[in-house]
Amino acid sequence: MTLTPSRAELESLDRTDPLAPFRDRFALPEGVVYLDGNSLGALPRATPGRVAEVIAREWGDGLIRSWNDAGWIDLAGRVAAGIARLVGAAEGSVVVADSTSVNLFKMLGAALALRPERRVILSERSNFPTDLYVAEGMAAFLGGRHVLRLEEPGSLAAAIGDDTAVVMLTHVNYRTGAMHDMAALTRAAHASGALVVWDLAHSAGAVPVDLTAADADFAVGCGYKFLNGGPGAPAFLYAAPRLHPALRLPITGWLGHAAPFAFEPGYRPAPGLKQATVGTPPILSLAALEVGVGIALEAPIAEIRAKSLRQVQLLAELVEQAAPGVFRRVTPDDPARCGSQLCLAHPDAYPVMQALIAARVIGDFRAPDILRFGITPLTLRYAELWDTASVLGDIMARELWRDPAYAVRRQVT
Amino acid sequence: MTLTPSRAELESLDRTDPLAPFRDRFALPEGVVYLDGNSLGALPRATPGRVAEVIAREWGDGLIRSWNDAGWIDLAGRVAAGIARLVGAAEGSVVVADSTSVNLFKMLGAALALRPERRVILSERSNFPTDLYVAEGMAAFLGGRHVLRLEEPGSLAAAIGDDTAVVMLTHVNYRTGAMHDMAALTRAAHASGALVVWDLAHSAGAVPVDLTAADADFAVGCGYKFLNGGPGAPAFLYAAPRLHPALRLPITGWLGHAAPFAFEPGYRPAPGLKQATVGTPPILSLAALEVGVGIALEAPIAEIRAKSLRQVQLLAELVEQAAPGVFRRVTPDDPARCGSQLCLAHPDAYPVMQALIAARVIGDFRAPDILRFGITPLTLRYAELWDTASVLGDIMARELWRDPAYAVRRQVT
Repeated sequence: MTLTPSRAELESLDRTDPLAPFRDRFALPEGVVYLDGNSLGALPRATPGRVAEVIAREWGDGLIRSWNDAGWIDLAGRVAAGIARLVGAAEGSVVVADSTSVNLFKMLGAALALRPERRVILSERSNFPTDLYVAEGMAAFLGGRHVLRLEEPGSLAAAIGDDTAVVMLTHVNYRTGAMHDMAALTRAAHASGALVVWDLAHSAGAVPVDLTAADADFAVGCGYKFLNGGPGAPAFLYAAPRLHPALRLPITGWLGHAAPFAFEPGYRPAPGLKQATVGTPPILSLAALEVGVGIALEAPIAEIRAKSLRQVQLLAELVEQAAPGVFRRVTPDDPARCGSQLCLAHPDAYPVMQALIAARVIGDFRAPDILRFGITPLTLRYAELWDTASVLGDIMARELWRDPAYAVRRQVT
Repeated sequence: MTLTPSRAELESLDRTDPLAPFRDRFALPEGVVYLDGNSLGALPRATPGRVAEVIAREWGDGLIRSWNDAGWIDLAGRVAAGIARLVGAAEGSVVVADSTSVNLFKMLGAALALRPERRVILSERSNFPTDLYVAEGMAAFLGGRHVLRLEEPGSLAAAIGDDTAVVMLTHVNYRTGAMHDMAALTRAAHASGALVVWDLAHSAGAVPVDLTAADADFAVGCGYKFLNGGPGAPAFLYAAPRLHPALRLPITGWLGHAAPFAFEPGYRPAPGLKQATVGTPPILSLAALEVGVGIALEAPIAEIRAKSLRQVQLLAELVEQAAPGVFRRVTPDDPARCGSQLCLAHPDAYPVMQALIAARVIGDFRAPDILRFGITPLTLRYAELWDTASVLGDIMARELWRDPAYAVRRQVT
């Protein structure tokens, strides 16, 4: 297939790419183009050894003593300090714990408690469903006084009113890759006296985030996407330091107590955000996450962002050449509104993606009609964009996705 | 030291112990007597290999495909089915997810929602603090309408009244080892129209539990104690099948949705208890827990219980001989009220336990004055009880615990 730039030109881009050395820090299988790192990040080469050490030496030999001797009790805090640097958060304003959904429950609950007289939770209709479910469940649990109001992206700012307690948004949309202007929407919310909870699931480690500069109130985020922490890795949460003194969380567990090992019958929150730690932290999963976060901290986010935008654009152009007029680009063209993924709509997106995966080009499908290609600059080579477009063009030209046996054949060969 | 039974007699007990072969399934360090498996269970020998396989092959090579191809999406359900058999729960009535604290929040919230007209949460003053903290936090979050009422163990049944929404108790007390009569207290609660939430942290895998026979309403439990799932392992929760149709949980996440991958904007709970799954499950930690639960399922609970009670009693008798009149037994003598630990009170419990740990006899201290010895029949040998009493007797006779340098010296030799 003739595509511009050529594969050779893209290989040459890879040779001068300042992020190219990071690829070797990950153990990706041979012959696979991996475009789903925004769903599950790749395995860092250092992770198996580190987790094996935690299991055999720290758990097996150290046993209960490792909470102190191996520093388990501080592990979540160490990982949180790293993530804080990735998202522009002040020291002590990030906690690593639980899942993104549970953390969202905690932060949304804390936000509502700070605006007791207001009843509207405002969000985006196409927000990641778990965010909407968490808000819906919380509103019901609180007796039905709150309303979850959903708007289209363009109507959000205008919909913020005097009765808005919380604006709850995902920075980069999981389905479209569209990115909100965090600072502007936060300003709009604050102008009406509302608080904002940002979901950074598709942002942390992928696009520049500066929670401090944006004056964000709360945030949550995911450890297993661009932070490469492994399947179901612990998540994180953020609350602005200015909110810490008045913070009241709905879930109050023993590790968020001011003196957890005093075993006092009454709850006294730990100072700062530490109260957002609830139960005993999952050490094996945290050890894996620490490796992924450590790699992310080594890579300048400006270089990640430059390569990401360039790769999104190149992939869009190459696919358009390989299959002219076949797909509709959903991810915004405007770099200021573009996250780190390319989403293409097609009526047969599901079988097309199945055919791609069978050809070892792994992206994913999002209902009803989206082919989603995650762009992870630490692992993705420019030449792989050419391969992706070429395979996709072949699948479309020969209508291979119509053949149910195709998947099987391609995996055998 | 002369103690009865002699070490030789106890070694002979080990030789005929039907559970003795289980010891080799665990990788315990040489020269350590481990009496803290009720805080962190020992490492199963199969765990490092299994977790390594999940990381290298399933995550590294399989990547996102492993959610289906490696069965990650069903992993929590498989582990839950195993735990259900350990606690006498019907199929589909246990979910593995989150931490014990978060699960308690979910089950307590579900219980309160089923008794909207009642306002009292009744518990035990010496319950594990996180249980009390969770209830306190939930009551505050719900606007202060609920009251957390704390009673002594003997006054609990009488304190259940018409205004009691939920009785929230830990089956085996973490600090004393005292065990409640689950069936009797559940009956008393039901007689007043109240629901019961049982915390099985020190019960699952340790003592016979039959949630179905006891007609329990809700339960939660821990994966890293007697189930040997590793530090911070995922926890579990239970709700009686008769409650599933009306169940409303406070935290509603995407994996608890009836169709999680349809990404619908509105929440529809999954049927049965599956709605109690909230966020993405932690696969590495679940893989480790599956190994521990698998071993527990191979060991008949009747044999575990018989050995546990015998070991508690033997340890108490040997310590009394080794240090006559020095300690006060806190764990009830009555087998029907005794969990799987021996707790001994002493004014200097903290330095005494430090000295024991320095001598490689690892139990733990619980404030203000408790030496706690966890009895884990799958790993603990009868002869080790003799060693424990002998070392403890020596420490007390020579007042070695008064010497701050003792810990260092014993660890060097």
